[in-house]
Amino acid sequence: MLVERIMTTPVKTLTPEHTIEDALNMMGENAFRHIPIVDQNTRLVGIISDRDIKLTLPSVLSDEDPDFTLKVPISRIMRKRVTYCHPMDFVEEIALDFYHYSIGAIPVLRDDKVVGIVTQKDMLNTYLELTGMTEPGSIIEIDIEDRTGVIHDIGKVFKELNIKIISISVYRNKEKKGYKTVLLRVQAMNPRKAIDILKDRGFTVLEPSQMGQ
Amino acid sequence: MLVERIMTTPVKTLTPEHTIEDALNMMGENAFRHIPIVDQNTRLVGIISDRDIKLTLPSVLSDEDPDFTLKVPISRIMRKRVTYCHPMDFVEEIALDFYHYSIGAIPVLRDDKVVGIVTQKDMLNTYLELTGMTEPGSIIEIDIEDRTGVIHDIGKVFKELNIKIISISVYRNKEKKGYKTVLLRVQAMNPRKAIDILKDRGFTVLEPSQMGQ
Repeated sequence: MLVERIMTTPVKTLTPEHTIEDALNMMGENAFRHIPIVDQNTRLVGIISDRDIKLTLPSVLSDEDPDFTLKVPISRIMRKRVTYCHPMDFVEEIALDFYHYSIGAIPVLRDDKVVGIVTQKDMLNTYLELTGMTEPGSIIEIDIEDRTGVIHDIGKVFKELNIKIISISVYRNKEKKGYKTVLLRVQAMNPRKAIDILKDRGFTVLEPSQMGQ
Repeated sequence: MLVERIMTTPVKTLTPEHTIEDALNMMGENAFRHIPIVDQNTRLVGIISDRDIKLTLPSVLSDEDPDFTLKVPISRIMRKRVTYCHPMDFVEEIALDFYHYSIGAIPVLRDDKVVGIVTQKDMLNTYLELTGMTEPGSIIEIDIEDRTGVIHDIGKVFKELNIKIISISVYRNKEKKGYKTVLLRVQAMNPRKAIDILKDRGFTVLEPSQMGQ
């Protein structure tokens, strides 16, 4: 999936001269947690998150007047080293950046201009789309020996039962060498019959907890 | 994938009588952001995050003495309504909870006891594993008409070129009705040849930005 398909665009930005209060208002009105900071040419110069701001606000337990803090310019607290990406990057690649740098949002630049933003929540949504979780159905997970034709054999079971496969992923099983895991999302609220047939044909099906107990 | 495969276990916990300072120390020493709060029978009674704590600390811009805040018991600021899960739940299902409730961590309970914790970062890692991004290789994305045998045709191209497929996902293309998207992670640093052959055979291959420009 490409970044341009999942990014929020246009993106709201502020300048380093704006205040913490401006940032707080913008976050509150729009229910987001990150704001890219740009100069007068809309070039990225920093980023500010709700975590950064929370560190600058007086304690909720104290009586201190928050007015002083609110007037502080963003330039004093913004982070200046920013990880960014391009609209044509693969989402899966920037997921690596999210993971390794533990960041909450990545601005999207085209020709040095900020054109969008991608957040960890967008990553989560991409994962849900990939696994078909945004559509009603059931999950079935199968451990298979890595041989040709095995996907075809699994597909046949669902075709026989007239159950539609929403999404299918095949990935390496890290615990069993030479094995792969097949993750299926199928359009059936009760996949019991399909599971029984798969087991009859020798497949190892992982049982969801609702059934196993 | 099951929660028990990705959860952090054992998990460090605190009680409501511990102080914010205790929580801060535990988070600092272990580099995590969430601590489940349990009673004397290790039953879950709340959760505390670094965000919750940051809201209670004096501003980094102020001279206020943080000592008072640090001695406040966790019970005063912990969240008491906690979303939790079971070790045998599917990761993909709890990903929905992460998404809908915008939470950072979900404690894992077995027989009412806290046995582990799963964070948004663990979700991200599962997504990376599913898409094969934790292994070196290249991404190829193909738009296909939803017809039988198409996966087989794609597999054939890579077999001919002797390129190993690390992972493959097939999911619905939301923009084009009747189409699916195939996401492949292949063990080749330069997938140019495979992309050319796929295009020759009529497949619509999404080009990564590095190549398209």
